[in-house]
Amino acid sequence: MIPRYSRPEMVAIWSPETRFRIWFEIEAYACDALAELGVIPREAAKTIWEKGSAAKFDVEAIDEIERVTKHDVIAFLTHLAEFVGPDARFIHQGMTSSDVLDTCFAVQLTRASDILLADIDGLLAALKRRAFEHKDTVTIGRSHGIHAEPTTFGVKLAQAYAEFSRCRERLVHAREDIATCAISGAVGTFANIDPYVEEHVAAKLGLKPEPVSTQVIPRDRHAMFFATLGVIASSVERLSIEIRHLQRTEVLEAEEYFSPGQKGSSAMPHKRNPVLTENLTGLARMVRSMALPAMENVALWHERDISHSSVERMIGPDATVTLDFALSRLTGVIDKLLVYPENMLKNMNKFRGLVHSQRVMLALTQAGLSREDSYRLVQRNAMKVWEQGADFLEELLADKEVIAALPEAEIREKFDLGYHTKHVDTIFKRVFGEA
Amino acid sequence: MIPRYSRPEMVAIWSPETRFRIWFEIEAYACDALAELGVIPREAAKTIWEKGSAAKFDVEAIDEIERVTKHDVIAFLTHLAEFVGPDARFIHQGMTSSDVLDTCFAVQLTRASDILLADIDGLLAALKRRAFEHKDTVTIGRSHGIHAEPTTFGVKLAQAYAEFSRCRERLVHAREDIATCAISGAVGTFANIDPYVEEHVAAKLGLKPEPVSTQVIPRDRHAMFFATLGVIASSVERLSIEIRHLQRTEVLEAEEYFSPGQKGSSAMPHKRNPVLTENLTGLARMVRSMALPAMENVALWHERDISHSSVERMIGPDATVTLDFALSRLTGVIDKLLVYPENMLKNMNKFRGLVHSQRVMLALTQAGLSREDSYRLVQRNAMKVWEQGADFLEELLADKEVIAALPEAEIREKFDLGYHTKHVDTIFKRVFGEA
Amino acid sequence: MIPRYSRPEMVAIWSPETRFRIWFEIEAYACDALAELGVIPREAAKTIWEKGSAAKFDVEAIDEIERVTKHDVIAFLTHLAEFVGPDARFIHQGMTSSDVLDTCFAVQLTRASDILLADIDGLLAALKRRAFEHKDTVTIGRSHGIHAEPTTFGVKLAQAYAEFSRCRERLVHAREDIATCAISGAVGTFANIDPYVEEHVAAKLGLKPEPVSTQVIPRDRHAMFFATLGVIASSVERLSIEIRHLQRTEVLEAEEYFSPGQKGSSAMPHKRNPVLTENLTGLARMVRSMALPAMENVALWHERDISHSSVERMIGPDATVTLDFALSRLTGVIDKLLVYPENMLKNMNKFRGLVHSQRVMLALTQAGLSREDSYRLVQRNAMKVWEQGADFLEELLADKEVIAALPEAEIREKFDLGYHTKHVDTIFKRVFGEA
Amino acid sequence: MIPRYSRPEMVAIWSPETRFRIWFEIEAYACDALAELGVIPREAAKTIWEKGSAAKFDVEAIDEIERVTKHDVIAFLTHLAEFVGPDARFIHQGMTSSDVLDTCFAVQLTRASDILLADIDGLLAALKRRAFEHKDTVTIGRSHGIHAEPTTFGVKLAQAYAEFSRCRERLVHAREDIATCAISGAVGTFANIDPYVEEHVAAKLGLKPEPVSTQVIPRDRHAMFFATLGVIASSVERLSIEIRHLQRTEVLEAEEYFSPGQKGSSAMPHKRNPVLTENLTGLARMVRSMALPAMENVALWHERDISHSSVERMIGPDATVTLDFALSRLTGVIDKLLVYPENMLKNMNKFRGLVHSQRVMLALTQAGLSREDSYRLVQRNAMKVWEQGADFLEELLADKEVIAALPEAEIREKFDLGYHTKHVDTIFKRVFGEA
Repeated sequence: MIPRYSRPEMVAIWSPETRFRIWFEIEAYACDALAELGVIPREAAKTIWEKGSAAKFDVEAIDEIERVTKHDVIAFLTHLAEFVGPDARFIHQGMTSSDVLDTCFAVQLTRASDILLADIDGLLAALKRRAFEHKDTVTIGRSHGIHAEPTTFGVKLAQAYAEFSRCRERLVHAREDIATCAISGAVGTFANIDPYVEEHVAAKLGLKPEPVSTQVIPRDRHAMFFATLGVIASSVERLSIEIRHLQRTEVLEAEEYFSPGQKGSSAMPHKRNPVLTENLTGLARMVRSMALPAMENVALWHERDISHSSVERMIGPDATVTLDFALSRLTGVIDKLLVYPENMLKNMNKFRGLVHSQRVMLALTQAGLSREDSYRLVQRNAMKVWEQGADFLEELLADKEVIAALPEAEIREKFDLGYHTKHVDTIFKRVFGEA
Repeated sequence: MIPRYSRPEMVAIWSPETRFRIWFEIEAYACDALAELGVIPREAAKTIWEKGSAAKFDVEAIDEIERVTKHDVIAFLTHLAEFVGPDARFIHQGMTSSDVLDTCFAVQLTRASDILLADIDGLLAALKRRAFEHKDTVTIGRSHGIHAEPTTFGVKLAQAYAEFSRCRERLVHAREDIATCAISGAVGTFANIDPYVEEHVAAKLGLKPEPVSTQVIPRDRHAMFFATLGVIASSVERLSIEIRHLQRTEVLEAEEYFSPGQKGSSAMPHKRNPVLTENLTGLARMVRSMALPAMENVALWHERDISHSSVERMIGPDATVTLDFALSRLTGVIDKLLVYPENMLKNMNKFRGLVHSQRVMLALTQAGLSREDSYRLVQRNAMKVWEQGADFLEELLADKEVIAALPEAEIREKFDLGYHTKHVDTIFKRVFGEA
Repeated sequence: MIPRYSRPEMVAIWSPETRFRIWFEIEAYACDALAELGVIPREAAKTIWEKGSAAKFDVEAIDEIERVTKHDVIAFLTHLAEFVGPDARFIHQGMTSSDVLDTCFAVQLTRASDILLADIDGLLAALKRRAFEHKDTVTIGRSHGIHAEPTTFGVKLAQAYAEFSRCRERLVHAREDIATCAISGAVGTFANIDPYVEEHVAAKLGLKPEPVSTQVIPRDRHAMFFATLGVIASSVERLSIEIRHLQRTEVLEAEEYFSPGQKGSSAMPHKRNPVLTENLTGLARMVRSMALPAMENVALWHERDISHSSVERMIGPDATVTLDFALSRLTGVIDKLLVYPENMLKNMNKFRGLVHSQRVMLALTQAGLSREDSYRLVQRNAMKVWEQGADFLEELLADKEVIAALPEAEIREKFDLGYHTKHVDTIFKRVFGEA
Repeated sequence: MIPRYSRPEMVAIWSPETRFRIWFEIEAYACDALAELGVIPREAAKTIWEKGSAAKFDVEAIDEIERVTKHDVIAFLTHLAEFVGPDARFIHQGMTSSDVLDTCFAVQLTRASDILLADIDGLLAALKRRAFEHKDTVTIGRSHGIHAEPTTFGVKLAQAYAEFSRCRERLVHAREDIATCAISGAVGTFANIDPYVEEHVAAKLGLKPEPVSTQVIPRDRHAMFFATLGVIASSVERLSIEIRHLQRTEVLEAEEYFSPGQKGSSAMPHKRNPVLTENLTGLARMVRSMALPAMENVALWHERDISHSSVERMIGPDATVTLDFALSRLTGVIDKLLVYPENMLKNMNKFRGLVHSQRVMLALTQAGLSREDSYRLVQRNAMKVWEQGADFLEELLADKEVIAALPEAEIREKFDLGYHTKHVDTIFKRVFGEA
């Protein structure tokens, strides 16, 4: 998490101030439940809410206490007590630190998920708008980096839309996975606290009670969460690499937006670099790598060891902040992407008409020629295009054997790009529910 | 995928024979749809089914053809044509190789998922049986590898049950993610084949049509699938490490099953090694590592490049076969696990009664002593247990200050293990729906 | 390790036959040392060598014994005893299985390293040959996929040569790291065997004695080895991606070799796909991923646990066989790479002469114009090239302000490609020691 | 890189202040060389050194300029010019930003390496001291977590010493790998700058000239560097896990230092948790994970793309700062580790004398009994130890069949621990060069 690749809303989730505020709420909601159960006085719970809500926690002061106690939750509770007064003794009764820490982490991750979901929604909206804008913008489809058959730029964006729709759904699942609350004591047995407290706090925080915790919420949940972020980052990489390819000097079918006054590089006006999508490629590598320590965190010893903690202090903020930034940057790229339909056509016709060779060959076959003969006829005309820059249609029309097998009109018909785009509406309906 | 860590049913999914059979079915179902559409004769489709179903594909012969054509699908179609006869020319019309390859991979992965789901069901059944068997088997809960508070061995197994229930749900999602069928042509535009064919084949194979493919099914689906297997493997590792810990010489609360005649190591009867769970730890590392190349596969260039193929030829079989083996082995370990409740008690009481010190201290506080005094009283008696091996209860009862603060009956009550296990039923109801 | 991506020499290292033969040699050399020490009769050692060397080990028979004993080394020794006769009782005295297994693994990895080193040598030779062939073949250098300044294709290959020279050196270090022999008994204390045996066997097998083993050779050695393979694989990926880029339809500066009769794709003569380098990209992902479980293997418990074993049974063969195949395939690609110098020039001149704009601007500045004026003059001419396809030199010569500032001869001189290639000899001397 | 796991010296390397200072030195040394070559006035170079050395760079001001120029190096040069005055126009002549950025990164990584090497030296010193202290402290060696044969605690520490000695050597190699300087211009051809400048700056900064750069220093160097840090982190993990095991309640052979006044957990005096080594386990996971994006960074497109940059802005500081902290923390743990030799003996004798059963059996065999009879005799006495807590030696001496086969003195001799430790000196000489 470095400022250059961070956005304030997500960063705020991971600030000490936010963390302490969430800790307070967990403790205060727990007091409500304990008061309901008659374990602590109702008045005390009320006082705790009032004094704690009004309190302005001093991070530096809490850190100072922690330097002595070597215990972050105790330091916070000590600080809190200064605001609450004598009733502070009713706070945290029967709870352990992990109850607070893990539930807080769940709250932070769900909030982070909500931002990420909004990010994806923004990206989807941009993709949809540009997809419809270019629904009929014909461009060459490429396999292996080599021209294959025509498609449209809108279809390319529809593919990305479908992919990020899936990412959205995965994130919804991942969010559910980590949205649990554990208030169950030292080894998860509720020895010193009634399960009702957990249920109450969970409900108030929009979480579900963890069915069975140890001291901690089990880390397979978090592994799944960070693995999901890794998959989403990989989809960010895919779309970024597509744009980087399209912006290559020799291709130049699209470009990241350049503001009018912006300079590429000194005197070279063509030097407009896809630096945003290159940056996104690197950020994707980072987010992806964090899935691994998250998976290694699963196998904590017995009821818990604390090896997960240092990992999560890092990847909790780093993965969510970086992915938030990446999704937002990608949305901007898509939103303002400069698209060059003329270059798309020019590239497609680099070998004039050759893209239709397969259809011509099939037509010859259907007209009764053997596959071998069809291939030979197409091949000899195609080679003139390939080697001498001829026009494929003209060559075919000038080839007597071809003309003898296939009427001119039918040959011309094989050069209709509409053949390739006739199902674009079908695809759009599948992806967007409309075309 | 090496024989030592493989089970035949999963291996069979990845055999050339199975693959060719699935290829045939994809082609034959596609012919049905093409016949319905009037593209090819209905009789041809019928013949293809009859002849192809009866055919015994010769893997070696197909490989021989591939060595010439350098193309696996063409090699297969050539071989198939020998069985089908002249109607073979109606097979594969308007399709591309990836239509067959990717849809086949989807079929293989869904079948693999079904086996893995059955594996997890088997593991869950074993966990549940043993959890109920040991619902009330008291054992010490440990945080940081250090004794914390009592729990029961059944609760430990309930935790594992809950974790693998989550893994099951994740696998159901992952299975849905990869269960799609693409028959959409060279760049996914359906230029040469009607979308109906895709819908028909998908329905017949229990798949959904891929809403928008390129030439291939997008690889974010597979990334999610293999990442999910990685998370499940991490849960396998967690339970394995738990057992390895319990089997340590100094702990010995449980052991992998040893058949009566089996020898540990030469003359040392105590030398029974947890080799199965150690093995599972290693296998988990392998499955987890395969999530990475799967994620790197997502960013294929443009409409596709073939870099994913070599990765999937490896991790497709390797990840599923290894995880299948691991889940099955783990089920066997749980099923036959030797559990030593007496050792559990003995370990818990290593420091006689000390596990109850916290409760005693709380009771003293509640009886009116200051927290400092309570701590001092408990501490001075606890140290005798810790340093001289004394019995904590006896020491407390002999301490006049303690007795003055707390009646003997109440002190004795604090040594009731039932205090720690009173919510086991609650936990079981949450996890199993019954207690 | 799948046949499609395997070469026989490397595969042979990992065959059961090779393994058993190495096991035999370790045991037999150990017997020599034990005989020297007077622990076993000299005659016995001699007999063991004679009978064992002549023996043809039957893998199936050994496997059969292992199914009963559940112990691979014991199974082998039992089988060996059938050939050796009564003197077999002198074999393996004071040794443990790991002594044999780990030392054998070291022998296999050093042999594998030797093949990989030869692979790299072959690749280096191909790179050098092609580098000198194209030392002066001017091509555009690209940053961000965008044209930057001219370089030569030979320099590109010199970069690859330098990179694989580094990889070679790294592999030499990695080979040293794993080339140790451990014959030190159950926990590495030489309790039952004299350290001299280890020294003797090590010397005979071309290994160094492990200074301090536990039961096993420490796994940080293997982690470093497989991490090094991962780095080499990443370099394979880099060169492969370079070629994939150069073969793109719009770039077409180089192509993987196509045999004269070979067909690209049906009727499309331009459809020559860089399938070999795409394949290498995928294989690189696989080799790289194996560094991770190797690193996780380091932290074995206490004097050893066996969790590393399953990992190594997989990545030992998989990583070395795959990398061997990849290096060999890459060598073939480089060796036969079709290079198109004319296309290189054509691409470089896509924007006619614009590549020299920076030099012209610098010259104007040096001629006394302000940086702002220089930029303005260059920019207005460059834009005509960029937007209207004009020729940059012609435009400059027609611009009175430019001509006024800079004599025509000097302007023309700025279009000399030799300016960019004047240090190619320096670079070649640095990389190859000659130019 | 988070404050909690950071040390100031390493953090300082990555501060903006340090970076700008290094940038200045690169530029100033380059000016010296350019002056020597006569490209710029000697006086200018002198002025630049004087004014620049005295300047106090204002990070906030530079950031402010960057927000406008979107270019970090230009922002710095603009700021620098304010101090240097008119001669500033001679700075950076013929150079590109990457020349500065990559060479600076090399300087930072070499400085970081030097700190890490010092860290390892500190750790080695601690390990050596404690190893000699406990050279003869007998403890049980464990394989699979199960008691095997005796060793000494000093030997365990010698293993760690040998492992970190290897890590040190690896880091020396890795440091060499990244210690290069590139000042070669836009695509590495030295078109606008003489190679002498690179040589001069390299020599001044303690680097080697990069033999052939593109625009950037090739990233296989950095991949190898971060992979090496990953391996070192894995060794940190290994030693940490050893300590965590030794501190388990049931084992308690060693403990992380607890200051006299320090409280474990409230009232439980046994609750001393190995939190430092658990923390190190997590930090190791993080450092290890960063090897992956570093490897993915290798395959930059053509002469460079900028995808590596975001990765390195993160892992450059994160990996070095975290590993520095981890090595330092581990050194502290070893330095002050509480070792409990009595518990080591107690654990070893958990099954009284059983650890010697193998030697007794071998002695019986050597005394002429068949292996089967020997096993039977040992087994029946061992089982009494195992099942009834008997003393193995006493049982053997009371077994008439045993006594008949082996004189009492010889039986007693088999219980000599010195048998297992007789080669400790050999091991120490190998590892430390002294014993």
